[in-house]
Amino acid sequence: MAVTQSQQDEIDALRNAPRSTLRAVSEGMEAHLYKAHSVLDHGFVRVIDYMGDDAAICQAARVSYGKGTKSVQNDEGLIRYLMRHWHSTPFEMCEVKLHVKLPVFVARQWIRHRTANVNEYSARYSILDREFYIPQPDALAAQSTSNNQGRGETLEGDEAERVLEILKSDSGRAYDHYEEMLGQEGQKGLARELARMNLPANIYTQWYWKVDLHNLFHFLRLRADAHAQMEIRVYAEVICDIVRDWVPAAYSAFEDYRLGGAQFSASGLAVLKRMLAGEDVSQDNSGLSKGEWREFQAAIGSADP
Amino acid sequence: MAVTQSQQDEIDALRNAPRSTLRAVSEGMEAHLYKAHSVLDHGFVRVIDYMGDDAAICQAARVSYGKGTKSVQNDEGLIRYLMRHWHSTPFEMCEVKLHVKLPVFVARQWIRHRTANVNEYSARYSILDREFYIPQPDALAAQSTSNNQGRGETLEGDEAERVLEILKSDSGRAYDHYEEMLGQEGQKGLARELARMNLPANIYTQWYWKVDLHNLFHFLRLRADAHAQMEIRVYAEVICDIVRDWVPAAYSAFEDYRLGGAQFSASGLAVLKRMLAGEDVSQDNSGLSKGEWREFQAAIGSADP
Amino acid sequence: MAVTQSQQDEIDALRNAPRSTLRAVSEGMEAHLYKAHSVLDHGFVRVIDYMGDDAAICQAARVSYGKGTKSVQNDEGLIRYLMRHWHSTPFEMCEVKLHVKLPVFVARQWIRHRTANVNEYSARYSILDREFYIPQPDALAAQSTSNNQGRGETLEGDEAERVLEILKSDSGRAYDHYEEMLGQEGQKGLARELARMNLPANIYTQWYWKVDLHNLFHFLRLRADAHAQMEIRVYAEVICDIVRDWVPAAYSAFEDYRLGGAQFSASGLAVLKRMLAGEDVSQDNSGLSKGEWREFQAAIGSADP
Amino acid sequence: MAVTQSQQDEIDALRNAPRSTLRAVSEGMEAHLYKAHSVLDHGFVRVIDYMGDDAAICQAARVSYGKGTKSVQNDEGLIRYLMRHWHSTPFEMCEVKLHVKLPVFVARQWIRHRTANVNEYSARYSILDREFYIPQPDALAAQSTSNNQGRGETLEGDEAERVLEILKSDSGRAYDHYEEMLGQEGQKGLARELARMNLPANIYTQWYWKVDLHNLFHFLRLRADAHAQMEIRVYAEVICDIVRDWVPAAYSAFEDYRLGGAQFSASGLAVLKRMLAGEDVSQDNSGLSKGEWREFQAAIGSADP
Repeated sequence: MAVTQSQQDEIDALRNAPRSTLRAVSEGMEAHLYKAHSVLDHGFVRVIDYMGDDAAICQAARVSYGKGTKSVQNDEGLIRYLMRHWHSTPFEMCEVKLHVKLPVFVARQWIRHRTANVNEYSARYSILDREFYIPQPDALAAQSTSNNQGRGETLEGDEAERVLEILKSDSGRAYDHYEEMLGQEGQKGLARELARMNLPANIYTQWYWKVDLHNLFHFLRLRADAHAQMEIRVYAEVICDIVRDWVPAAYSAFEDYRLGGAQFSASGLAVLKRMLAGEDVSQDNSGLSKGEWREFQAAIGSADP
Repeated sequence: MAVTQSQQDEIDALRNAPRSTLRAVSEGMEAHLYKAHSVLDHGFVRVIDYMGDDAAICQAARVSYGKGTKSVQNDEGLIRYLMRHWHSTPFEMCEVKLHVKLPVFVARQWIRHRTANVNEYSARYSILDREFYIPQPDALAAQSTSNNQGRGETLEGDEAERVLEILKSDSGRAYDHYEEMLGQEGQKGLARELARMNLPANIYTQWYWKVDLHNLFHFLRLRADAHAQMEIRVYAEVICDIVRDWVPAAYSAFEDYRLGGAQFSASGLAVLKRMLAGEDVSQDNSGLSKGEWREFQAAIGSADP
Repeated sequence: MAVTQSQQDEIDALRNAPRSTLRAVSEGMEAHLYKAHSVLDHGFVRVIDYMGDDAAICQAARVSYGKGTKSVQNDEGLIRYLMRHWHSTPFEMCEVKLHVKLPVFVARQWIRHRTANVNEYSARYSILDREFYIPQPDALAAQSTSNNQGRGETLEGDEAERVLEILKSDSGRAYDHYEEMLGQEGQKGLARELARMNLPANIYTQWYWKVDLHNLFHFLRLRADAHAQMEIRVYAEVICDIVRDWVPAAYSAFEDYRLGGAQFSASGLAVLKRMLAGEDVSQDNSGLSKGEWREFQAAIGSADP
Repeated sequence: MAVTQSQQDEIDALRNAPRSTLRAVSEGMEAHLYKAHSVLDHGFVRVIDYMGDDAAICQAARVSYGKGTKSVQNDEGLIRYLMRHWHSTPFEMCEVKLHVKLPVFVARQWIRHRTANVNEYSARYSILDREFYIPQPDALAAQSTSNNQGRGETLEGDEAERVLEILKSDSGRAYDHYEEMLGQEGQKGLARELARMNLPANIYTQWYWKVDLHNLFHFLRLRADAHAQMEIRVYAEVICDIVRDWVPAAYSAFEDYRLGGAQFSASGLAVLKRMLAGEDVSQDNSGLSKGEWREFQAAIGSADP
């Protein structure tokens, strides 16, 4: 379970204390507030707070005195226009604060997105819990043979068992030793800031992460992508679901123009024009490298023979 | 008047539409929402939205599941500790969105604070209003004789009159010509993006400005300072009053540790220790330059003979 | 002329003082150092300093101990790969520092790019020069009738003359009055920080602007675009020429993947697939809005009937 | 040893290839270029590139056409003035690029400084080396009894031995298992992006880190501080030595105004004034909390009875 009973009680207490506000309210987001959405074996994503809604994007784009909304339909059109033309500043006017529990090796990828605010649980100050990410058997993938930073087939049989056994026993032993070094019975006890160095990268940490909608979309475009490591992609997918409920029009534009879209190079556009003119283009005469040709084919949905 | 009647009606409509929310609410800030606080002759500051309160700072610092509050007193102590030790990330967990109307030359200083989100009214897209900042007579200061970027005495009599007359007539003429160039009766009408270049820097612009509390405090420390230009300082002072109502504990810590505090150099500390040991130190034997000595004296409240 | 004789002498002095260094050197950039490239009537762009070259991008991508270069050909391939897959961090490892002289209304657009360092000439501290941007006659464009933030046809005849006359006389009068207010003969003289408010947005300012290559590419993609205002686009074009000489491989990848490329939405891709399958698609049955269809047609190079 | 012989050969090759440049050159920094300065047991800091020198700070502050230097003495005075008055932008005009090898738990603290550019060695793409930080015996500190995030006395005897034994054997076993899981003889071999999760936080990673001088000073102020964790402080101290050689005047101002200085709160200033007036102030009647009083005493160099 991602949260303990006493943590769940705290969450319930917050969900049972509605207040009155004059601010913009997103009903879709109110339904998510504080709830822990499970991710991986012990992780979660929780919405702690948010600012703004679809109308707030338009209100900012129009620098208006009132709601900024003329009609929902107008707002949708404006939001699509803003997204299409890379007018990013109105999307920065919405903000979300998440509480995320995640393995350290995922946190290390995540933190590379610099335009966000972070408060991480401090292992200098506090003692970490005994919680480690152990992959599901179907997530035990072999190294890809074609892509240096990707996964290939799933491990099977003995090999899978050996890997799981290693991950479990090494995690357990590392944590036992962590506790042993910290212990103060009959000894001084090692400083927390030192003892933590024995813990492997699959231990869970947690943080508060606050980000504006524009930068969140950038994060989601990269991390909900098929090439992202699965262990961070599952977090991105949960966040996608949350954002869809929060700002439906903005999310829909994001899906159309970013997630589901494709970027063509000048060389790729040239090939496209030849194809549209009826020419039969192959990689050989395309002027594209093998990698570029593969990606080009994928974008236009051609089966690669 | 800072806002027109129809703008005031839009504001009133928003203030008369309370909603229910599960988010953290700051009663002090709810009282400010949407209202236009007048600044200078035509400017204003309005709170459009906010995220978080004093308790949210502690909640983030503790990466907690629930409110993060043990007691108001505990929270105040923690907030003072965080501020004193430059732990800035918990303060970044609060956010505010303001609508500001301000002269262009003030906007040009303001925008130098880069860690914020901005949507400015576009003079490429829209036509600016005929509103110019004309200083009050007692704000017509002469160039400082001691400080190259400061003000000295107030201008008087004929000189003050000439200056006011110039500012008013040049503004008016520039705007007449702006309209004339834009006009499409009997002519094509110059593009807005070009016509705006004729407008002087005392014309008013407006923007939505969103910033986190840590970066807002940084802005306020520099811009509410006695050395800031008066025309931006008055905006900072209005925002100080708003922040005090929003997050009283954080503002109080900010006032004590930043606004009202002082930074001493190593050389200054050495002088201080000699003084505390009873020595009579003068600039000559202090090792400080004249400028540093003047600032040192000011910090310890000594009258400069 | 963009620089005075004594400024040119300072520039020449710097160009005549080669030094020895162990750092990466770009010969293409050395040829640009300090020279003023004229832009508009009084503006310029000058390279003051730079860090890195094409090889430095690869060196960082490989986190290498030595040069990071295996061969120029390998480097080009790696750089294209990085650009294609949005691996932006290696491009951030190159940096350039420019001295730019530009009209204030251009500076106000430019400064919206926040991830850069700026030192602007201070009109609080110093007195601005009598230099104003007055458009060439063929740059006097009418407001676009189809695009609220664009230009249409060129103004002609009397209208063009009236506009030029207004811009020149208002600039001149504003500057005369600026000097008159500042003057200290027989009067105190208004503070510089106040007198500047009378100056129109076509006055020239100048700054040092430092930015990394990734963020510079982002700036160039938006500002060298056909939809950017001409008065900032001409600066972007000059910078494009400089960057091409500095990091030829990176610039070439940027040209192919960004400047000359196009982004298709999911809906656009769907239309593309239907077209490639031989279907005759029109806006009516495309599912795209008129604006999107127009942009789609432009991307695939179709004449719009 | 921090670098292998072949790495040292690459470094030597770079140091033996001087080039001619027209850029600003810092002789103090040229002497550091590429050399590996050892830190901890396997770590290092290497300067890969730099931009600017003391004169460049002044050149930017003056937005000048030439060197910006009137005299070295003038430059020093200007730099001290800029530092004292928190004029940060001229310091942002210098930039440095470092190659750093450091334990992962140090890297996790370091990366919290967001205003910098980073390229880290990728454990998704490559295999990490068998190198772990094992503290020197005198660095094996107990948890502080007074400060939750600090260190107390040094561990001794059996306890120290047990801790070292644990750190060494757990590191070794984790790496053995990492290799075993990756191995492709007789099995598929686990994906690198998964296998890395078994590695503890004392394994070494490395990155290219690029930062401007203003943000570097901010980093150094926090990380060269006595309260920083020793394992990051030793990196900061090595960088301090490098910066002193690079920009001696700026570093000297930084030392005086930041590193060696102290910040007093409004309450602290009030106590100071009473003391200077001859009053005997104790914590009881100071109005300061115990923590604040202790820090106040430390700042004015009073022995705490």
